[in-house]
Amino acid sequence: MAANSFGKIFRITTWGESHGKAIGVVIDGCPAGLPVDDTLINAELDRRAPGKTPYTSPRTEKDTAEILSGVFEGVTTGAPISIIIPNRDADSSKYEPIKNLMRPGHANFTYLEKYGVFDYRGGGRSSARETACRVAAGAIAKRLLDHFNIQVVAYMEQIGNVAVTERKASLEVLQNKTQQSPIFCPDQAAQDQMMLAIDKAKDHGDSLGGVVRFVAEGLPVGLGDPVYEKLEANLAKAMLSLPATKGFEIGEGFAASASRGSEHNDPFTTTNEGIRPETNFAGGTLGGISTGLPLEGRVAFKPTSSIKKTQKTVDHEGKEAAFVLPEGSRHDPCVAIRAVPIVEAMVALVLADALLMNRSARL
Amino acid sequence: MAANSFGKIFRITTWGESHGKAIGVVIDGCPAGLPVDDTLINAELDRRAPGKTPYTSPRTEKDTAEILSGVFEGVTTGAPISIIIPNRDADSSKYEPIKNLMRPGHANFTYLEKYGVFDYRGGGRSSARETACRVAAGAIAKRLLDHFNIQVVAYMEQIGNVAVTERKASLEVLQNKTQQSPIFCPDQAAQDQMMLAIDKAKDHGDSLGGVVRFVAEGLPVGLGDPVYEKLEANLAKAMLSLPATKGFEIGEGFAASASRGSEHNDPFTTTNEGIRPETNFAGGTLGGISTGLPLEGRVAFKPTSSIKKTQKTVDHEGKEAAFVLPEGSRHDPCVAIRAVPIVEAMVALVLADALLMNRSARL
Amino acid sequence: MAANSFGKIFRITTWGESHGKAIGVVIDGCPAGLPVDDTLINAELDRRAPGKTPYTSPRTEKDTAEILSGVFEGVTTGAPISIIIPNRDADSSKYEPIKNLMRPGHANFTYLEKYGVFDYRGGGRSSARETACRVAAGAIAKRLLDHFNIQVVAYMEQIGNVAVTERKASLEVLQNKTQQSPIFCPDQAAQDQMMLAIDKAKDHGDSLGGVVRFVAEGLPVGLGDPVYEKLEANLAKAMLSLPATKGFEIGEGFAASASRGSEHNDPFTTTNEGIRPETNFAGGTLGGISTGLPLEGRVAFKPTSSIKKTQKTVDHEGKEAAFVLPEGSRHDPCVAIRAVPIVEAMVALVLADALLMNRSARL
Amino acid sequence: MAANSFGKIFRITTWGESHGKAIGVVIDGCPAGLPVDDTLINAELDRRAPGKTPYTSPRTEKDTAEILSGVFEGVTTGAPISIIIPNRDADSSKYEPIKNLMRPGHANFTYLEKYGVFDYRGGGRSSARETACRVAAGAIAKRLLDHFNIQVVAYMEQIGNVAVTERKASLEVLQNKTQQSPIFCPDQAAQDQMMLAIDKAKDHGDSLGGVVRFVAEGLPVGLGDPVYEKLEANLAKAMLSLPATKGFEIGEGFAASASRGSEHNDPFTTTNEGIRPETNFAGGTLGGISTGLPLEGRVAFKPTSSIKKTQKTVDHEGKEAAFVLPEGSRHDPCVAIRAVPIVEAMVALVLADALLMNRSARL
Repeated sequence: MAANSFGKIFRITTWGESHGKAIGVVIDGCPAGLPVDDTLINAELDRRAPGKTPYTSPRTEKDTAEILSGVFEGVTTGAPISIIIPNRDADSSKYEPIKNLMRPGHANFTYLEKYGVFDYRGGGRSSARETACRVAAGAIAKRLLDHFNIQVVAYMEQIGNVAVTERKASLEVLQNKTQQSPIFCPDQAAQDQMMLAIDKAKDHGDSLGGVVRFVAEGLPVGLGDPVYEKLEANLAKAMLSLPATKGFEIGEGFAASASRGSEHNDPFTTTNEGIRPETNFAGGTLGGISTGLPLEGRVAFKPTSSIKKTQKTVDHEGKEAAFVLPEGSRHDPCVAIRAVPIVEAMVALVLADALLMNRSARL
Repeated sequence: MAANSFGKIFRITTWGESHGKAIGVVIDGCPAGLPVDDTLINAELDRRAPGKTPYTSPRTEKDTAEILSGVFEGVTTGAPISIIIPNRDADSSKYEPIKNLMRPGHANFTYLEKYGVFDYRGGGRSSARETACRVAAGAIAKRLLDHFNIQVVAYMEQIGNVAVTERKASLEVLQNKTQQSPIFCPDQAAQDQMMLAIDKAKDHGDSLGGVVRFVAEGLPVGLGDPVYEKLEANLAKAMLSLPATKGFEIGEGFAASASRGSEHNDPFTTTNEGIRPETNFAGGTLGGISTGLPLEGRVAFKPTSSIKKTQKTVDHEGKEAAFVLPEGSRHDPCVAIRAVPIVEAMVALVLADALLMNRSARL
Repeated sequence: MAANSFGKIFRITTWGESHGKAIGVVIDGCPAGLPVDDTLINAELDRRAPGKTPYTSPRTEKDTAEILSGVFEGVTTGAPISIIIPNRDADSSKYEPIKNLMRPGHANFTYLEKYGVFDYRGGGRSSARETACRVAAGAIAKRLLDHFNIQVVAYMEQIGNVAVTERKASLEVLQNKTQQSPIFCPDQAAQDQMMLAIDKAKDHGDSLGGVVRFVAEGLPVGLGDPVYEKLEANLAKAMLSLPATKGFEIGEGFAASASRGSEHNDPFTTTNEGIRPETNFAGGTLGGISTGLPLEGRVAFKPTSSIKKTQKTVDHEGKEAAFVLPEGSRHDPCVAIRAVPIVEAMVALVLADALLMNRSARL
Repeated sequence: MAANSFGKIFRITTWGESHGKAIGVVIDGCPAGLPVDDTLINAELDRRAPGKTPYTSPRTEKDTAEILSGVFEGVTTGAPISIIIPNRDADSSKYEPIKNLMRPGHANFTYLEKYGVFDYRGGGRSSARETACRVAAGAIAKRLLDHFNIQVVAYMEQIGNVAVTERKASLEVLQNKTQQSPIFCPDQAAQDQMMLAIDKAKDHGDSLGGVVRFVAEGLPVGLGDPVYEKLEANLAKAMLSLPATKGFEIGEGFAASASRGSEHNDPFTTTNEGIRPETNFAGGTLGGISTGLPLEGRVAFKPTSSIKKTQKTVDHEGKEAAFVLPEGSRHDPCVAIRAVPIVEAMVALVLADALLMNRSARL
């Protein structure tokens, strides 16, 4: 069933647990001739890195990915690209006291019921650590997109009740401002308020959710394969496969439900690049196929499950218990922050695959 | 790339255009021994049937599906089940006048660019007519779920700005009330207001969007396969593969982004059925695996693209033109209404597949 | 698990039982812009047609395939192509007397054990009738290959102990001679002896096996994807998925096992088309990738299982019984004959898929 | 296209080049609860180990596989199992002199044409070294089969013109005798002659081909999924995906083509285990589904391509050249020998997958 693989032609398979020896990803189907190296991947991993700010968890580990195959003399060979990321700073002893408790908002209950066994150390396979592999693979996907002048950016649009107010800017400006913000928020005023909100939640031993927006530009018309491989269908699956996600929108999303056809429909016009929709309420696709306008959507993240507050739970035998995080546990007060580069990576992976799939559309 | 197939073990492949000879679906991977017949499928198709109320389009065609293979002496044999639905009431001549115009909100632009050819009659492959095949296959999936005491219901939660106010009811009550409503809305007060809103939009030659909610009960703990085949990931893909969908939520969805961990986390407790979350803000999954609580989510539909109002567009050569719907065109004022049984079918298809995939989880 | 589908990009899904209402195939992933129609398919089906000669079974049904979708104004649209072939001459009453007996050499035993139910009429899903769908889909695949100047031929190389002695001829000559032979044998002397052998076996109420050879020319260098999608790996799977097949060879096949490296290795040389192997003991691939030389291989078919002679068997309860074919049963004395166009179709399907897959090999 | 993956539920993805940093395999879909460890895998790798006898190449590297994920406290968790095998003894400098020459019988020509780039060191991805990953994964598959009392053995049946004369023995005896033979031949008289033949070929700077036979016992009735996932179809693909393979047979194979139906058909009888075929000319399947009798088949290997004799070839520019193996090159005089445990592994992988796929056959 290949439950740990994603994509059809440009296809990734990830492996590894939070506190195992290493995690990794195998990329199969990357075309030959693409220049890639470890640096490219580690630069992306650094963006996702824990310990970067007080607003993400203080795990001090700096990830160093290594390409083990599929690249020869600096370019991809068409063979599978295996990337490994060792787990360095993985002290699992602190999980001992809670190993027999169901963790509210976590997956240890469902994993245990499904598989009869659970690697309780730091979340095991269900840990967000797996997403480092997506970022590593996403770095290769982005390089492929670069080659075709497709650019992707994701940024923090909302944390708790604080939202970015103004978001019209060129993708390049968005990329720069986002990169400069410790919480990936391109709007400084909003960023400062978001940080205050986080500080406040932390003070209460609590956590916050958030919304990440993504934008991709430079797409040709034609990406996405109806009817089940629509571009937004694969984006939705990509996003809901991320830990802590609760919702996905393309274009106007749920707001479209409350609008009228005459407001929502994008009229067509002729531009320098050819026929295009004049507005982009659709968010860049029609019938599941890219229109050539920017691809835009949003992803909802729930508040971090691990909080300092004591929570009600039961142990493996079903006996009532209080769940208290072990001393020294490191957890982000808002998982959505670190999710920003991950969302970006998932968009890149979906687009790389759609780009290659589109090569068979015509004779 | 199998872009017209959905599911891994319980896998459907749909085919057919809106105004071709027929449409159909092949179901591969349905276990042997399940009692099914044409009646079962046609009962579901009747629910989706066009022409049922003034609130859906007056296409008078009554679909009659026929099982052509895979069933012997009343039960499935393990062989592929082929279902065909002839296209009876398909007058395509009226599409002639608009065949060279890009239709705002429709897929003819993107199909034409991608494939270099487009079956312009009634939307061709991009038509919502394809969803009849999903409903037909969903009827078989539901029968399979029945066997394991899993029930699914979908209903109209919001049209335009009118929303169901009270939604706590047993699944059985929801099913009954929904079935009695011409617009699949279990809340009569809301239903009446929704109808008024539709009437008003129609009077203006306009259309409305809507939100469909789904609920499934009776799921065992364990459905869904991390990390890329999470239950909500496949649900999200299923829903965003439907025409006109703009968003998906599981559990609290986007609202979760504005909540705190201490509010959102579901504590664990012990019930008659074993350990379960005490509340269900998560919407029935943890780590992508079902918790045994009801599976709940929402799907956003944009307003119908086909409206009476004249719209700005261009022709195939890019020359400006006015888009006017041909006389006698039949279109729903709110596509979300007819989508209700389709959403239900997609939930059933995702669950049937997850149920079979779960058989390999353990030794 | 999609057990009734074959291919990755150019992907077919077949359905239907020998004595059901119809059989059919859905082709997904055929590029848009290919000119196809019913005639093209029916011409291929005629070649496979039963009742053509005394050397194949007298079932008088003439198959008439109909394209139901995916073609618009004479060309493929990129949408799935659904082809249906009604079952006309399917008298299943004669199977009643043997419905409770295990048929030696047939699949009713294994189907019944696996699925708990078996459509005993004429072999049900296990019938060679399913291969008509492969031929129909193969007709489209061949048209695609034509576009790229790739030609495929299969012919009868051996029946019983009679083998073609001389097989060096151009592909075009092979095609013509094969087409003129009632048993698809391009060597007339061998053909006559094969016919005698068949007559003799029939006189004894017995049947014969045979070997079918295939040749494809015009392949570019590069088809086939290592390491698990090697061209010969997919050909082997294609052939062993056919009923009654017992073996597959590429190039020298088993004979290569008894040769030395210095004899078997094909040296390289420079030709008008570029670098190529000078000889072709390999059969047209190296490392699973086409070399540009003719693709050549062989497929072994067992003797027809249905014979007039009384055979020992048991009934469903395991009680000893004599298996006697019902009066009026129609069976080929040598299944390999009718398999010739089927082998050809399978080669075409494998090559069409490999051709499209190869589009993603390079940047 | 996932060209480096094999299997549907029990699915492997291999990566790595002959002279890269490491090779490895990710196993996805192994059920939770299976006891496995490094020792299990390394024991199988030792069997395949180079340098074991003068009849295989003297590469002195002893492979040491390490499980990096998917196993917790000694049992599988349902998460992907990543296995890494470092490349220790990989001196690639000797490949420099021949890097611009097409190697007769090798894949550097086709890889270069297909991908535009080739890792020339030791065969890169096309090297038989990749098969170590199959053996590692096969060790896990075998453990799974053990749990269901299914046993697999492969052995050397023929080298050059020397064949095993008597092969009737219990699977256990075959396993023991095969394990004791330095060339995996259970028949000592044949083994001695095979060794002489190899010595003679080596003296001439030449190489030999061979045939490997496999037998599996303990299969339940029901493995294999018609029509495209027939057990023999997947076995054929598995075998032809191995380097140097030229043919595959199930049961009587090509010999069946020369037999009559009355000779080849296996009559049914009643045994202690239920209804079974009385003889096994079919080789253990009917209609692509296991009959419960031993699964038997053969695989043909060409003679090793790398030989001491000077061979005719061209360089990358197409200029004529003489191909001479670099001094110190290590190559097996008969690749079929080392292929024995690899064939065994591939049978195990196919059966493990078929076993899990069969879980969805019935309600």
